[in-house]
Order: sequence, then C-alpha cells, then structure tokens
Amino acid sequence: MRVTLVNTGTELLLGDVQDAHLAFIAREILPLGLRIEERRTVPDTEATIRRTLGELLPACEILFVTGGLGPTDDDITREMVADVLGLELRQDPQLLSSLQQRLQTRGIKWTARIARQADVPAGAQVLPNQNGSASGLYLKAKINPRITSPHLFVLPGPPRELQPMFQASVMPILRSIVPASGLLERRLYKIAGVGESLVEEAISGKLMAVPGIELGYCARPGEVEVRIIGKAEAIEQADAIIKSALGLSIFSTADESLEEVIVKLLASRNQTLAAAESCTGGLIANRITNVPGASNVFIAGYVCYANQAKSDMLNVDPKLIEEHGAVSEPVARALAQHARACAESDHALATTGIAGPTGGSPEKPVGTVYVALDLAKSETIARKFFFPTDRETFKELAAQAAFDLLRRKLLATS
Amino acid sequence: MRVTLVNTGTELLLGDVQDAHLAFIAREILPLGLRIEERRTVPDTEATIRRTLGELLPACEILFVTGGLGPTDDDITREMVADVLGLELRQDPQLLSSLQQRLQTRGIKWTARIARQADVPAGAQVLPNQNGSASGLYLKAKINPRITSPHLFVLPGPPRELQPMFQASVMPILRSIVPASGLLERRLYKIAGVGESLVEEAISGKLMAVPGIELGYCARPGEVEVRIIGKAEAIEQADAIIKSALGLSIFSTADESLEEVIVKLLASRNQTLAAAESCTGGLIANRITNVPGASNVFIAGYVCYANQAKSDMLNVDPKLIEEHGAVSEPVARALAQHARACAESDHALATTGIAGPTGGSPEKPVGTVYVALDLAKSETIARKFFFPTDRETFKELAAQAAFDLLRRKLLATS
Repeated sequence: MRVTLVNTGTELLLGDVQDAHLAFIAREILPLGLRIEERRTVPDTEATIRRTLGELLPACEILFVTGGLGPTDDDITREMVADVLGLELRQDPQLLSSLQQRLQTRGIKWTARIARQADVPAGAQVLPNQNGSASGLYLKAKINPRITSPHLFVLPGPPRELQPMFQASVMPILRSIVPASGLLERRLYKIAGVGESLVEEAISGKLMAVPGIELGYCARPGEVEVRIIGKAEAIEQADAIIKSALGLSIFSTADESLEEVIVKLLASRNQTLAAAESCTGGLIANRITNVPGASNVFIAGYVCYANQAKSDMLNVDPKLIEEHGAVSEPVARALAQHARACAESDHALATTGIAGPTGGSPEKPVGTVYVALDLAKSETIARKFFFPTDRETFKELAAQAAFDLLRRKLLATS
Repeated sequence: MRVTLVNTGTELLLGDVQDAHLAFIAREILPLGLRIEERRTVPDTEATIRRTLGELLPACEILFVTGGLGPTDDDITREMVADVLGLELRQDPQLLSSLQQRLQTRGIKWTARIARQADVPAGAQVLPNQNGSASGLYLKAKINPRITSPHLFVLPGPPRELQPMFQASVMPILRSIVPASGLLERRLYKIAGVGESLVEEAISGKLMAVPGIELGYCARPGEVEVRIIGKAEAIEQADAIIKSALGLSIFSTADESLEEVIVKLLASRNQTLAAAESCTGGLIANRITNVPGASNVFIAGYVCYANQAKSDMLNVDPKLIEEHGAVSEPVARALAQHARACAESDHALATTGIAGPTGGSPEKPVGTVYVALDLAKSETIARKFFFPTDRETFKELAAQAAFDLLRRKLLATS
C-alpha cells in the first residue's frame, strides 16, 4: 500500500523546529509491512496545502497529514481537507462541550477561534487527543464517492499529542485496513555499557545465518538500540542469537528507559535509592522522577554542585576534597556513602566529574568522571570514565553509567 | 523565487537517520530573501526520483537535490538528473584524475563504480567537495533550451560534505541569481508566563498594520516563540509593537533558554541560587547545570522527594507538613526559606506538587503545584498553578513557572 506523509508547518521549513513525525510513524507502521514512500513538508498556506492534497489524494492509499489543527489563524488543515474532499464541516456538540470543559478546568478564556477545533468533516471519525485540545480525524478511503481519496489521517503537530493518539487510535484502524499477509514482527533490544561497533561485531555476522531478517542499529548517548524485523520464525532464531551474544548488556526488550528499569528493579525488591550528584547536576534525580511510581523508591537527591555544598549537605570531609580534589575516586565514594547514610536508603549513587567546557587540567581533562555506588552491606564500588564531549551529552553519559552500574549490581545480587 | 528541496535516501524514510539539510539550507538562504517552499523526502528508486524531478523541474525556480552521488548501486541522482534534462553525461578528465589521486592517497581500491563520480552532465558546473569524493553539480536554469527547468543544485548527502560546499560554492551562485531587493530580516521572541492564544491576541491585530510582515508562532511547554520575517523597515516597526505589547514577558530575543537567561541574570548580579525540589524532582537543578558557567551561580539542589527528606535535608517542621500537607503554600515557602538558609545562597526556588498519574485528591487534584521563591531581604513569594497533564510536561511547566518567577523578580529589583 502506498503510504505518504505530509508535514504542514511553516516553522518546519524555516529550520526552527526539527520534525519528529517521520521517524516515529515509520517505526510504528513497519510491523504492519508499511513504509512511508514519500514525505512532503509544506507551509501553512492555503494554496500549498490545497495543491498538495490535490496531487496526493488520488495517488496514494494511506495518507498522514500532520499539523495545522490548533486554534490560531495559520491552522487551516481541517478546513482544507474538508474543502478538497467536498465534505461539509459540522460542529460536533460532544467535542464542543469537552473542549469547553477542558478550557474551563485550565482557566483559559473561550474564544471563537477555539470553537473551530470542534468542527468535523461529515463522515469523519474523531481521534481523541489525551494531551491537547486538537482532536485528530480519520477519513476512510473514498469518503466522498465522487472523489478518489485514500485512507486519510489528520493528526496534531506536537509530538506529545500525536504519538499517544497514533498508538491508541491510528494503529487499530491501520490493522483493520492492512492485509494480514504483510504482517512482520519487530523486536527491540536496548543495550547499555557496550558501544555500537562492539554490539555490531557481536551479532551482525551471526545474524547473517538467519534469512529474511532486517537489522537496524541506533546509537544514543550511553545506549545502543538494535531492531530486527522479519517473519515470526526467523525472528525467534535471531532473538536467541542476540540474547546469547549480548546477555546482561541488554537492559530492555520493551523499549523502556534505563531509569524505568531501575525503578522496576528497586520496586520489586522493596529497596530505595538516593543520589549525590556533582557533575550530573540533578539529571539522575530528574530521570528517576520522570518514572511514575518513582516516589516509592527514590528518597532524596543531593545536588552538591559547589564544593562547599559537598561538605554542608553530605558532611564530606573538606580535607578529603582538599587532598584528592573534588573530582576523585575517594570523594565519589564518600559522596555515595554519605548520601546513603543521610537518606537512610538501601543504595546511593554518586557522580563527580568535569563537564566542561572549562575546568579541565592535564591530569583531569574535561570529560573525566567518577561514578560510585554504595550498597546495603556497606559495599562501595567506584568506576572512572572518560567522556570528552559536549556538556549535555557528558551529563547523559555519566548518568547512564551510574544507572548501569546499579542495574548490573542489582541483577548480580538478586 | 520558488525554492524546493528534495532529499533522496531510503534511510531517511525509515526514520533511522534524521535529516539535517532542511534546517541548514533554510537558515543559509534566508538572508537572501529565499525560503524553502516545499521539501520532499523520497527513496533512492529510479521511478520516484524520475517522477519527482518531472513534477518539480517546471514548477520551481531554484531546486536543491541532496544525496545519491556516491559510488554504490543506489546512488543514481546524477544519472537521473542528466536523463530527465536530456543532457549527455561526459567523463570529466580533471575530476577523474583528482578522484584517482584521492583514492590512492587513502589506499582505497579503484573500481568502475567510483569512476561514475567523474561523470558530469553536459554544461553543468562542478562544485568541489572538500570532504568527500562526491562533487556537487550546478545546472543553470533552462540548461537544455527545450526543457523548462530551474536553477538546479545537486549536492552530496553527508552534512559534513554538503555544508562546506554550500557555503563555498552554492551561496556565491545564489547571490548572483537573486535580486538584491529580496533581502529579508528575521527576529525571534521567546515568551514565558503567557499562553499562545493570549500572545496572539496581544500582537496579531496590531501587526496587521505593518505590511509585509510574516508572523509565526510555536508553543512549547511553558513558552511561546514568535517569529517575524520581513524587510528591515517593517521589521523595526513590528519589533516595537511586539516589545510594547509583551514587555517583560519576552525573556529572550536571542534564542536562549529560560535557564540560560537565569544564569546570565544571576552572574551579572554576582548572585547565587539554590533549589528545593519535590515534584520537579531535580529538573530545575538539571536545567540550570546544563548551562556552561552554572557553577558560578548554582550552589546546591535539594531533591526532597520523600516527605521524610523534606524534614531531614532541610529541617522543615514535620508538623507543618502534617498540618497543611506536603503540597501546600506553607510547605513551599518553608522549603524555599530553608534551602536558601542551608545553601547560604542569595535566592532559592522551591516546588511541591502532584505530578501524577496517582496521588491526587478532590481538594488537590493531579496537576496542583506550589512554586516559592525566597529572596535576599527575607522576602518570600509563593504562587499556585494547575497543570493537569502528563508527568514530564507537568515537571517542565512547574520548572518553567519557577524560573519565570525568579526572572521577573530579578528584573523588577534590578
């Protein structure tokens, strides 16, 4: 089936906003045997949207259009779709009242512009938006018998609105449209503590023996994602190969983040965590507290950024800092030990390092970081890493290293 | 002049590789008054590239095509362009010998496939590649008098090859093509503390009075971005209107984040900050410490996630928590006051709220948050907000509200 994606939004063409929809939708629909065969990015102007729809409606079988469903003047996708398809726009009373309620709850003033978001082309199915006021629309193929048109999905522009809507409402419709013979399975493996080229070396040769497997890699700071796609039988063979080659380095096969895995592991053991963060500056606490249920396992985070704070907050001996430097293994160990003692938690992680761009020295260049873990039974582990990169990536890599240290230790002692 | 960009590459449509060309080219050409009016992403297949060129050649005035100039089988852009424009491909002897030399230097074996990279459509200008073997091509408008075609630039796919080539070779050609009268300016305003629809209400009507201004909005959690593009004189008028209508709500006109602005404001005043974070769970500290130079202004962050931690870390009276609840104005005030006292900083921010998805009650539903600011001179300000949304957006909105409270207070007392 010929699938096309149209991203509307002048801001996309100015280069100010990076499109996230293509990658997301491509990955979601791949297991259905669907691929995007063309993507167009067009501005929010009537003439362009009209021309683009006119060209694409007769030419594809599934069409996704994103953006332009909001309340402002440049949001015209809903109106253009109805117009080009020759469908009347009708106000949906249920949608209108839920919109009014939504705005009232948030104390936002009602305006006539917002009311446009309750307009629905005749015969279209409304796709609920859990995270915003702009509902999506599904218009089945040939919704107007006089006009050749594909299955058309009109979706909101913000990724945090589009993505849950896509999974909850679009995928079930796609599954009912797509012939089952095309069905492929997809598996995902998230790996920490091993670089991309070593992951590839460990599995790519062995996977050659499994015919019909498509293999993909994606590297992010501190983790590698391996994807395989194929028919069920081949997938099982490939799965066994990957698991035996990578073992404990695989932290999730369910697209979880490392912090989600940590929260689950701790919760299942009824254990708690604290963190003393110098160079990661709160990132460890922030990532852990992004996970629902974090309050059951995370007690406290000590962002001891200044040296004085390391002593004031956590009673680290100033002499230890003076003797070894704040960025040193003894200080990392002390931070973890004192954090665990102060928070009365089962475990504590600590980081101390030089994020840069300034602050490096020949002995301790920018990118140096010590990660420590203090565990129940008074065992303390410390590791030194070197991540010479930009500041934010450095923080991500250090946090990732800390989480992975804890994860491996929890699994080893279970 | 109608400008179109075509990105070729099957990998782009699978979502594995993020396109960087659109943003780069858009920003490079904007000062010439040029903007990309449409972008198409298409796979490396003969039929699609042929169809796409057939549709676009007669329809635009400047066309950029990226990718497909390499030596592998799926690199067919050069051949397709020559074919569709009815131009003979001729081997360029100078290009051939420089290619041979390049490969010899690198010890790469010469193959017939590589020789294709020395083929040039008749009449095309070669654009040298400083960082790779694939030269670019410039074909002037109507290079074949029998075929309607635009100024056509064929450019290599890797950004590190395309970008220097664009600046060194493409820009001079564009400058000679584009009439000088087209030159435009662009301004950007980042706004906090006011929602998108209110921002629009405040400026869009007034800006109607300025002819030739293009206005764009982009909303992100807790901030709105306004962009204007136009001729210099109109831009000055629009700038005055926007600044007078939005005043202090504009936190940056230089594309800075709110935390960058905070770090600058504090540094220029020689003042320091601490943060006591319950519901934001370290996000405030994390965002501040993403800014280079944060160590000069940020002392410490107390991520007092558990109630016990609020008392243990910051000596908040357990009775206060018992009496008013952890999510309350008195506790928010106490957290800010104690954080400032413990860290001995000039200012301290505090947050306490219910991120959800669980933990809400009828009196304090999920989304409730108190933000407090304790300032030098022992003044404490607290604000209540309601952000009923997903957990991560809730944290972003609460952190944003805290930063904006501090920013406005710093500006008011300067």
